[in-house]
Amino acid sequence: MPTAALQIKVSPVQFSRLASSRTAWLETLSDFLAFPSISAIPSHRPDMAAAAEWLANHLARIGLRHAQVLPGIQGGCPSVYADWLLSPDKPTLLIYGHYDVQPVDPVSAWCTPPFKAALIGDSLFARGASDDKGQLFIHLNAMESYLKTWGRLPINVKIWIEGEEEINSPTASAFLMREFERLKADAVLISDTEMINADCPSIIYGLRGNLTAELEVLGPGRDLHSGRYGGGVYNPLQALCEMLASMQDRNGRVAIEGFYDRVNPVLSPDVSLQGCKCCQLKERQILEALQVDTPWGEPGFSLQERITSRPALTINGLQGGYNGPGAKAVIPSRGTAKFSFRLVPEQSPRHVAMLLKRHLARCTPPGVKTRLTIGKGASPVLLSLDHPVMQAVAGAFRKTWGKAPVLARSGGSLPVVEVFQKQFQVPVILMGFGLPSDAIHAPNEKISLSQFFRGIETVIYFFAEYAKL
Amino acid sequence: MPTAALQIKVSPVQFSRLASSRTAWLETLSDFLAFPSISAIPSHRPDMAAAAEWLANHLARIGLRHAQVLPGIQGGCPSVYADWLLSPDKPTLLIYGHYDVQPVDPVSAWCTPPFKAALIGDSLFARGASDDKGQLFIHLNAMESYLKTWGRLPINVKIWIEGEEEINSPTASAFLMREFERLKADAVLISDTEMINADCPSIIYGLRGNLTAELEVLGPGRDLHSGRYGGGVYNPLQALCEMLASMQDRNGRVAIEGFYDRVNPVLSPDVSLQGCKCCQLKERQILEALQVDTPWGEPGFSLQERITSRPALTINGLQGGYNGPGAKAVIPSRGTAKFSFRLVPEQSPRHVAMLLKRHLARCTPPGVKTRLTIGKGASPVLLSLDHPVMQAVAGAFRKTWGKAPVLARSGGSLPVVEVFQKQFQVPVILMGFGLPSDAIHAPNEKISLSQFFRGIETVIYFFAEYAKL
Repeated sequence: MPTAALQIKVSPVQFSRLASSRTAWLETLSDFLAFPSISAIPSHRPDMAAAAEWLANHLARIGLRHAQVLPGIQGGCPSVYADWLLSPDKPTLLIYGHYDVQPVDPVSAWCTPPFKAALIGDSLFARGASDDKGQLFIHLNAMESYLKTWGRLPINVKIWIEGEEEINSPTASAFLMREFERLKADAVLISDTEMINADCPSIIYGLRGNLTAELEVLGPGRDLHSGRYGGGVYNPLQALCEMLASMQDRNGRVAIEGFYDRVNPVLSPDVSLQGCKCCQLKERQILEALQVDTPWGEPGFSLQERITSRPALTINGLQGGYNGPGAKAVIPSRGTAKFSFRLVPEQSPRHVAMLLKRHLARCTPPGVKTRLTIGKGASPVLLSLDHPVMQAVAGAFRKTWGKAPVLARSGGSLPVVEVFQKQFQVPVILMGFGLPSDAIHAPNEKISLSQFFRGIETVIYFFAEYAKL
Repeated sequence: MPTAALQIKVSPVQFSRLASSRTAWLETLSDFLAFPSISAIPSHRPDMAAAAEWLANHLARIGLRHAQVLPGIQGGCPSVYADWLLSPDKPTLLIYGHYDVQPVDPVSAWCTPPFKAALIGDSLFARGASDDKGQLFIHLNAMESYLKTWGRLPINVKIWIEGEEEINSPTASAFLMREFERLKADAVLISDTEMINADCPSIIYGLRGNLTAELEVLGPGRDLHSGRYGGGVYNPLQALCEMLASMQDRNGRVAIEGFYDRVNPVLSPDVSLQGCKCCQLKERQILEALQVDTPWGEPGFSLQERITSRPALTINGLQGGYNGPGAKAVIPSRGTAKFSFRLVPEQSPRHVAMLLKRHLARCTPPGVKTRLTIGKGASPVLLSLDHPVMQAVAGAFRKTWGKAPVLARSGGSLPVVEVFQKQFQVPVILMGFGLPSDAIHAPNEKISLSQFFRGIETVIYFFAEYAKL
């Protein structure tokens, strides 16, 4: 539905470059970023519902059809759906994104309020700016560019925006089962990953799996005075540290028996970054973007390999005892840790969960009890790259970045990718525009505006290329 | 100042047994327990001042002289002083206590509000009920019993109640220097320790020292996504667990090089509980009171020895990363631990601090930085028991408990005891009435009413015995 001012022929790419378009998009995205749609925290459920409602309205506003909120499965968070299916002889693309975001603590570490988008220099700061509200808007803005100029999309599009990605998409499989007819497509496009760096467009073909766990160690039935009883009671915090330290050696090699049994000690050389000089040289740059001084990790592998193609164990949270000002002479009665494994394609969350349980059963000292809670895991995935749609992706990147994308693996997990693979059996395209410096899952998350606008152009070109296949 | 009703001759002990006295005392103590006088938390400074003011008024009310609040040293918390010095030919006793209390978290674990005293069965529950507001009131009530019946005390008494004991009495030494003339006495009496059990009155002749420390481990400059970067960045929580686990073996033996160099591997047999059948049999009972199933600690020593006569290391607090509901995929940028050593007489806080620094310097992995903050330590003490005043103590216990007190060491620390020893060079009497089940420093702290009232009687008898010396 082009406006009067746009009756002069403007292409979708030209439209996306107009200052007026860009200003409007940043304002709209800022409105979307204002919803504290934190899926992990139950008290934010009303914010989730409000964000979904707002999003469905926005999809209708830009000209998509059938925009609606679809109820969640088993009390889960709702999804948002819309489509544009008026090119009967063209392929159908399913775009997936998520409107939920990570928790924001430590809030004190944020320079600007996490749910009030702040434009500073080339960056828009807010929780979700990159992961995934901002990247999702790259697609919406690309589609808006088509609909506002040519009044149509060159391909058919369906869009599914879920609200549980940051909690490992626990109901995605059941949702896809229920909505199979509505969502089925010829390919799936997701922008929820990162490029190696701003000069190096990347198609991600591998994702690590994920297994989250929470370990509670219980000691004495109540807190005890550490002066009076220190040395005579097994301290649950001591046991917790010992158990966590026992799971990994100082080089980052997981020390759980059997953990590497199925892991190929040699990385497959066929698709990798070995040939990409620009990537090989950037280890120092990656560390700088992460504000890390010293490389670390499993011996015999590069940094890029360690964070994408090798499994890892990370302690995500530790808590116990007194942590206020000064000191408290206490042997606390309990301590907890949250930790997670990233898994490579030869591993399965179920098998690693079994190995973990066995390891903890062996190393729990007699003076304490433990409670282990294992989360819903995500399987690792390797994507096929030989479908013709990948040529359209490469072509789109070449037009915007002036070079072909590198093929890379990401260390992150996208549980829904495995679900798409299994249930749809169509190509899944991971066309991410995030950068390592985006600080996703951390305070001061941001998206680079140049990545954002270049991303919109890339998606516009991709639609055009895909229509030609 | 006896009231009209008490003109009939009632002895101080009889007065302390009257239901009316006891009811009034519990009400007054409850008023005192209502002040959240937590010295560790700076925001409670106004509560500290209010508690001190209230206490000075109470000391005047019961008939003591010169009751006043004395300003703290170097901005420290104020002290409360009073005296009764009208027995010129009798010895002068300095009673020491403290009106500050430990923090109350986790507040959710309290069955009743920590600053609203609750009388349930034989126990009065509140923060400070035993440590040390309740035990301090044993002395005040004993003095009130004398003053309300005979109108005088059989000895001279000074009382100094400080407000910084729970933060290791950082200014006590300077305070005693400033107030030397005002406070000097022939003996010091403190009730801030425990008896072995309710049947076993105990004089404590040894206290462990204390050294508190806080370790902050700093990793990447900001939180990182643990999927994208897990395996390539040294996690500060991992390093923290490794460093803490490296400081102690699983049997509770401190693994810091040089830690035991000065520690006598054999306990001195002269004064100990070896001969006390009632104590030797109570290991299971101690564990039950602590709600602990399994004995633990340094091989070759009994539970009682481990918690009183051997050094120990306790992690008091652990914090880092995400600890809310669900999971967060994060490599946090920092983690912290609070821990403390209890030291035996051959050790000094300064030496152990040096060993700790050396140990941490050696075991800090290259990928992280650390910040170590060491608190003001307390030296361990061994008290002489051969002063005649100890016979008066033993006599008082014999009258109330029907048996001589055992001589025991306590695992706790009372920094001020070393200061008294050094600056006054007079006997220090640790006449504690607490019980292991009092849950001091923990939720649901309480004092046993039978201990409380028996304690008052013991102190009344002690004054009388001391006057006879």
